[in-house]
Amino acid sequence: MRYTHSFGKTNKQAPHDADSANARLLIQGGFIDQLAAGVYSYLPLGLRALNKVKNVIREEMDALGAQEILMPALTPKDNWVQTGRWDEIDVLFKLEGAGGKEYALGSTHEEIVTPLVKKFVNSYKDLPVAVYQIQDKFRNEPRAKSGLLRGREFSMKDLYSFHQSIEDLDEYYEEAIAAYNKIFQRLGIPAIVTEASGGDFSKYSHEFQTPTESGEDTIFVCDKCQYAQNLEITEYQDGDACPKCDGIMRQMKAVEVGNIFKLKTRFTDAFDFHAAGEDGQEHDVYMGCYGIGPSRLMGAIVDVHHDDQGILWPKAVAPFPVHLITLNAKDEAVKDKILRQAETLYQDLDQAGLEVFWDDREVSAGEKFADADLIGLPLRLVLSEKTLKENSVEWKERAQTESRLVKLEQIIESAKSFIQS
Amino acid sequence: MRYTHSFGKTNKQAPHDADSANARLLIQGGFIDQLAAGVYSYLPLGLRALNKVKNVIREEMDALGAQEILMPALTPKDNWVQTGRWDEIDVLFKLEGAGGKEYALGSTHEEIVTPLVKKFVNSYKDLPVAVYQIQDKFRNEPRAKSGLLRGREFSMKDLYSFHQSIEDLDEYYEEAIAAYNKIFQRLGIPAIVTEASGGDFSKYSHEFQTPTESGEDTIFVCDKCQYAQNLEITEYQDGDACPKCDGIMRQMKAVEVGNIFKLKTRFTDAFDFHAAGEDGQEHDVYMGCYGIGPSRLMGAIVDVHHDDQGILWPKAVAPFPVHLITLNAKDEAVKDKILRQAETLYQDLDQAGLEVFWDDREVSAGEKFADADLIGLPLRLVLSEKTLKENSVEWKERAQTESRLVKLEQIIESAKSFIQS
Repeated sequence: MRYTHSFGKTNKQAPHDADSANARLLIQGGFIDQLAAGVYSYLPLGLRALNKVKNVIREEMDALGAQEILMPALTPKDNWVQTGRWDEIDVLFKLEGAGGKEYALGSTHEEIVTPLVKKFVNSYKDLPVAVYQIQDKFRNEPRAKSGLLRGREFSMKDLYSFHQSIEDLDEYYEEAIAAYNKIFQRLGIPAIVTEASGGDFSKYSHEFQTPTESGEDTIFVCDKCQYAQNLEITEYQDGDACPKCDGIMRQMKAVEVGNIFKLKTRFTDAFDFHAAGEDGQEHDVYMGCYGIGPSRLMGAIVDVHHDDQGILWPKAVAPFPVHLITLNAKDEAVKDKILRQAETLYQDLDQAGLEVFWDDREVSAGEKFADADLIGLPLRLVLSEKTLKENSVEWKERAQTESRLVKLEQIIESAKSFIQS
Repeated sequence: MRYTHSFGKTNKQAPHDADSANARLLIQGGFIDQLAAGVYSYLPLGLRALNKVKNVIREEMDALGAQEILMPALTPKDNWVQTGRWDEIDVLFKLEGAGGKEYALGSTHEEIVTPLVKKFVNSYKDLPVAVYQIQDKFRNEPRAKSGLLRGREFSMKDLYSFHQSIEDLDEYYEEAIAAYNKIFQRLGIPAIVTEASGGDFSKYSHEFQTPTESGEDTIFVCDKCQYAQNLEITEYQDGDACPKCDGIMRQMKAVEVGNIFKLKTRFTDAFDFHAAGEDGQEHDVYMGCYGIGPSRLMGAIVDVHHDDQGILWPKAVAPFPVHLITLNAKDEAVKDKILRQAETLYQDLDQAGLEVFWDDREVSAGEKFADADLIGLPLRLVLSEKTLKENSVEWKERAQTESRLVKLEQIIESAKSFIQS
């Protein structure tokens, strides 16, 4: 993608009202645009990052044996009344349609997925089954804030699993934790498995908490074994001994990037969802739910991976791996040569599977370098009069301060091995 | 995907209340599930078909030089008031959130995209620009009907283009028509470019109309040159002479699968969106909009491509190209051999890029054949005791009545060339 052909531009000024690093940098870098409090549009750069996050999650859900489906956002009141949550969930957006029919905008989908799965499960032979979707959720937050961290419309991956026994649910739950850990590892974001409130049906649920100053949650984490509890349920204080090892519990701010929950029969009972067992009798069906918000995760990634100059995208989610900069030369013949070289490099990198964001604008080197730091792609390559003479490319990794020259004939292999490392 | 591992099942009975072929066959085949009138969930098979439709559209939008963005569904009242459409659009879903803030659920996105693009366009140098999104729209239809053809929540690809002159808009509009024709051709669905009402600002808009009995629209089409007008604006009657050639205008029912519109300055004026010209003066910005509904298109494809037994998916959008059936043998050793052969064939087809839906259930041959016809994948391959003896596979194309034996060693190449043809 050439900068001059791309929709969205970096801003010289940071937005004055951004209340978090992710909102400030993503808006200034031309990734997102705020339409209303907690409601954002994704520009091409931002949509690419969001889709990369979604795809990592999708791959790990598929590897877990879950099947992708897509449920609507517009959901009938009746489903929510049946579980008692029409009045219970205070952030439910409610609306009325033709003929006085009432709906809620899905803030979660237990009310929809449970009767849906019930239709296709006759007996234990159809269990376990796990389905997930990646879809926008809506929450009527009294105070939307922290950019992509707490929105009124936001992207969610929600997985639901159904089992014939509590043991089977327990086993799947552990597999889901492993899948979640793999997702956060691939996305380059630390996430601490944290005990949180289990509601009426389980002792604990588990949150995946990423330490960051912009986080709304307070957690206590063992400095040795990473055992952690959310402030909401804990009796620990900063400096207490860890109950699991000889480490110390430390207090920190964090953002919840995932949440998993053993719902057991809370929703299957509400929809009278039972399944025949091997004994021919009707048995309870046990349910788990597992959420990760891709848009919130995108915000958390930026909150964790940035410096004073801008974002540092982890390779797995960078909208493009390579930021190519051509510097303008005064001599027209030299300028032409640089542009032709850039064109070839662009094509060669693309063919090697490395998509390139090419800053081909007629602006100063300083402006281009500042924008490259702001946008934060992992590898910056510069072509200039100087590199032309050396038959080289200037190589700078976003996470490093030093640049160096790499010979043109080595650049593709070097870039490939850097990005894939 | 093995049938026994897949979520969603075919039903022996057609849903009693389906009012169209697409609703009946898609529900019976386990592609979609109706949550409420005009509101559907997509099961794995249905989501695969929907995503294939979306991807064909996406590829052609990218080829047209448009850039993908993603705007929210939750849109502030102010934007709609500014164009006068808060009260004008009768199918707008309206809702109220925290602090009395009012929103509409996007039924279209001119009100959002126009001020968004305005932010990034300073002068004629930034024009033309074209952005699109693929996202769910909401319409408070008084009567949702015809399955996926007229829903209350439905998928939409909406493209918006902005130009510095009416001539540039005219030119782009023709390119968009060409891109749309290519999309419908790739999707295997006829679509007639039909003149329709242009509103206050243009003589005509253009609809892409697919002839089908379940269509809500009536159009008049020349039987020779395909010149067409919608009943809403036409003065033609069935049997009239074509004004463009020596053909005859014929009346038919059709479903609108796409719509393009020269909005000119209707929305750019409303948002005071002007751009400096080469002369340094502020000039009007001319806008076009171009819609295709992927979910409606999926419904239209089924309405057009089905027979008494079920769906006939065009190759480009079939959820899987190949439907593999293993028939149970009485002899355990033979049964094992068939299953091992199926496993190998499944892997080999997959490696050749041909995804397989494998009916591995322990049910009768008749039930498997009936379900294969209902689900409607382009190529059915059967492995049985008989084919084992012949070292062959039974080959049957969904669109043909006859089956034949193909030697095992030729099957991959034959399947590849059939699917790619």
